[in-house]
Amino acid sequence: MNRLAGAHVLSVKQFDRALLEDVFGVARSMRVLVRSVGTADLLKGKVLTNLFYEPSTRTSSSFAAAILRLGGSVVPINDVHYSSVTKGETLEDTVRTLEAYGDALVLRHPELGAAARAAAVATKPVLNAGDGPGEHPTQALLDLFTILTEKLGVSPGSDTSTQRCLSGLRVALVGDLRHGRTVHSLARLLALYGAELHYVSPELLRMPEPLVRELAAEGARQEEHRELSEVLGAVDVLYVTRVQKERFADPDDYARVKDAYVIDETTMAAAPPGLTLMHPFPRVNEIDRAVDADPRAAYFRQMENGLYVRMALLAMVFGRAG
Amino acid sequence: MNRLAGAHVLSVKQFDRALLEDVFGVARSMRVLVRSVGTADLLKGKVLTNLFYEPSTRTSSSFAAAILRLGGSVVPINDVHYSSVTKGETLEDTVRTLEAYGDALVLRHPELGAAARAAAVATKPVLNAGDGPGEHPTQALLDLFTILTEKLGVSPGSDTSTQRCLSGLRVALVGDLRHGRTVHSLARLLALYGAELHYVSPELLRMPEPLVRELAAEGARQEEHRELSEVLGAVDVLYVTRVQKERFADPDDYARVKDAYVIDETTMAAAPPGLTLMHPFPRVNEIDRAVDADPRAAYFRQMENGLYVRMALLAMVFGRAG
Amino acid sequence: MNRLAGAHVLSVKQFDRALLEDVFGVARSMRVLVRSVGTADLLKGKVLTNLFYEPSTRTSSSFAAAILRLGGSVVPINDVHYSSVTKGETLEDTVRTLEAYGDALVLRHPELGAAARAAAVATKPVLNAGDGPGEHPTQALLDLFTILTEKLGVSPGSDTSTQRCLSGLRVALVGDLRHGRTVHSLARLLALYGAELHYVSPELLRMPEPLVRELAAEGARQEEHRELSEVLGAVDVLYVTRVQKERFADPDDYARVKDAYVIDETTMAAAPPGLTLMHPFPRVNEIDRAVDADPRAAYFRQMENGLYVRMALLAMVFGRAG
Repeated sequence: MNRLAGAHVLSVKQFDRALLEDVFGVARSMRVLVRSVGTADLLKGKVLTNLFYEPSTRTSSSFAAAILRLGGSVVPINDVHYSSVTKGETLEDTVRTLEAYGDALVLRHPELGAAARAAAVATKPVLNAGDGPGEHPTQALLDLFTILTEKLGVSPGSDTSTQRCLSGLRVALVGDLRHGRTVHSLARLLALYGAELHYVSPELLRMPEPLVRELAAEGARQEEHRELSEVLGAVDVLYVTRVQKERFADPDDYARVKDAYVIDETTMAAAPPGLTLMHPFPRVNEIDRAVDADPRAAYFRQMENGLYVRMALLAMVFGRAG
Repeated sequence: MNRLAGAHVLSVKQFDRALLEDVFGVARSMRVLVRSVGTADLLKGKVLTNLFYEPSTRTSSSFAAAILRLGGSVVPINDVHYSSVTKGETLEDTVRTLEAYGDALVLRHPELGAAARAAAVATKPVLNAGDGPGEHPTQALLDLFTILTEKLGVSPGSDTSTQRCLSGLRVALVGDLRHGRTVHSLARLLALYGAELHYVSPELLRMPEPLVRELAAEGARQEEHRELSEVLGAVDVLYVTRVQKERFADPDDYARVKDAYVIDETTMAAAPPGLTLMHPFPRVNEIDRAVDADPRAAYFRQMENGLYVRMALLAMVFGRAG
Repeated sequence: MNRLAGAHVLSVKQFDRALLEDVFGVARSMRVLVRSVGTADLLKGKVLTNLFYEPSTRTSSSFAAAILRLGGSVVPINDVHYSSVTKGETLEDTVRTLEAYGDALVLRHPELGAAARAAAVATKPVLNAGDGPGEHPTQALLDLFTILTEKLGVSPGSDTSTQRCLSGLRVALVGDLRHGRTVHSLARLLALYGAELHYVSPELLRMPEPLVRELAAEGARQEEHRELSEVLGAVDVLYVTRVQKERFADPDDYARVKDAYVIDETTMAAAPPGLTLMHPFPRVNEIDRAVDADPRAAYFRQMENGLYVRMALLAMVFGRAG
């Protein structure tokens, strides 16, 4: 039985290299499955409750498609804010009520720690689909899976090769590194494998000091930059994030930084031929649409990988794979 | 063939003791099914339309899970207020249109009598999931099923024992008894079996006189109370309801009564060891969270029973059980 | 392999008579299927993404029921306006992201040409469920299918009889012919078969001149009317549409025309016994409810036909029928 069977998926901190290998191995099988026959009956009869306290079309659709492609079904709850909650119900009561109906619960919630609070009262597995400034672990897993897939091709080998692939890999995280829970989690995972981390952000949006110190203490190689040009010529992965207007109290501050790291055809011309360009989406203007046709643009494949990784996690949580 | 096959489920008045026995017998099988294998293909190919004119996460999710666990599928319509209806379409037109797509229709609507209006034009079964101040029959059925299950254990016997269980059982209904359609329906069902009904409410929120007279005429034993302490020491079931702020024209009236019957650990210490504590949920502060760990707190099991009762009703309406 | 296999369904212009025959033949089989056994596993494992940028309960439910009845499943996305899109994501990005999860995409969008834009970037079939003032091809197909079914009965014969049925058939399109994308598409299809088109509308809401000229150039027989009485006595099909208040800048203009073509029992008494009365729904007061019981009122059967036609299109797009 795999270690995720019956377990909650709350944080990337749960994942060591052995478990990541398992997840990615299953995710690779899921890709083969989807691309060859489309679906399987692996989770036939399983009901997933998709509990979203804030809208996230991409994530909720991805989890829904994942359970459906494994033969299970989904109870989508996207209107929580209209209903019981406005009548004053706590998250804990909602979770204890709704868990009676499904076999596992995917939770998206705007508050830090919401997933852990849900897991504390739930008798069934809880999968964290983002808890405000907290974590969004399945995003980090699909990001790492994408790097592996892009670098190793679709039929990668053993743990050794994964290790070899990521060790020393130069990954630049670009944009809003201060608020981006995704880049925080991804940095943690990359550090596990000894990747070389380059943080490219405006002063105002630097990677949080505590996280940098924590990873440093674990031996991570990290470097900070203000200009993309400092790393562009010699980077293996460029992970671009959006600078969200709503993060700024002062609109002038936003105006100053929003276009600082736009990737366009000129940027791509200066980047290495083996680059992998990623973005968690949605994008606004961080990556010019002209770049979409560049084979190094991996962001649509990244979305697709989200399906495979979530299928893998569900199969493992239900004890049917890994 | 059971009497619900192809029928509408509109009111608890449709249910006599024989039919209730059938429903609860099937509901017990559904519990066994869910707890052992999770799902079955009993309703494979059946499509349920979940038509909700007002949000009710709990009820819509429960019906959705019920059909999914029986191998059917659901078309969830939760946004009626945004769509055709705002263009002026009548309930009858919406029902006649949508019934073409599914095999049965679950309807939640804010107006009294909406379910009957829908049933009058529908050619397929309509299940009333609450019609404003009218009825919410599946809630009353799951409440009664919960009392039986809590008192008799999970493998109860024949109609005789059900009768013996409920006859003379002291049930206190607490809180807003004036507006609570749930307690009205539950009182009706309990009266069928000769339970002893204790109504505990503020003067302003008393059980409606017409209903009290009607049940009295049928021989029901009923008693009114203003204070919970009058019944607490000698009651078998405590069914607590919420006093909704929106029911009060004058906020001062609300302030006076809202905390009148809060159940906390002190209350529970004064209650009998064999008590069953219930609540239709959502709760605000009517029951202190510290009480959740008390084995007499049955409200989360009550939610779970909602799934089994709705599975039973669907199986019977589709003529596949009972 | 049928010509729709793997194709987009964007416009009625894609459909010639041979292809229409195929679609309607499959739609007839779907009716037999639904009425006899309810569902089939023809599209088992297929996932349909229902992407609705504006609410349309009827259309989204119809597509959902169609894929469910063929054994597939649906990822319903009805809240796009709350989510990524409000964060500035383009339609193209949303489509490229979401298509990773499903096997085909149903799109409803308020802008002209949205379906074609989606199809231009999608690697999977896109079905246009209405793009603003553009087209709503599945509505036109179900309308034509309804005319055939009403006139020929449920077991029609070959292409010849379809042709014979529609050639010279007198069809009156009534109401708002200026803005109604449905009547534009339906007129196109009817013209293919040589039906006689009668346009009945107020001056302000006439059939657009370019369309009239285009159909005339193709040899269509078209006639314009201001009064319903001019055609009522000798028409085979009366297709009534709603005059939408939101189309009028001046409320007085609306007031003048809104009740101009109301169909009531008096109207029906003056109409031929073999009339087929249709409406795309929702209706407000264009057709009096007293008319619903008239056997010539075909609008609820029309809704039902929507299910069969959409099942047929899905089966053909997925290459499993036709």
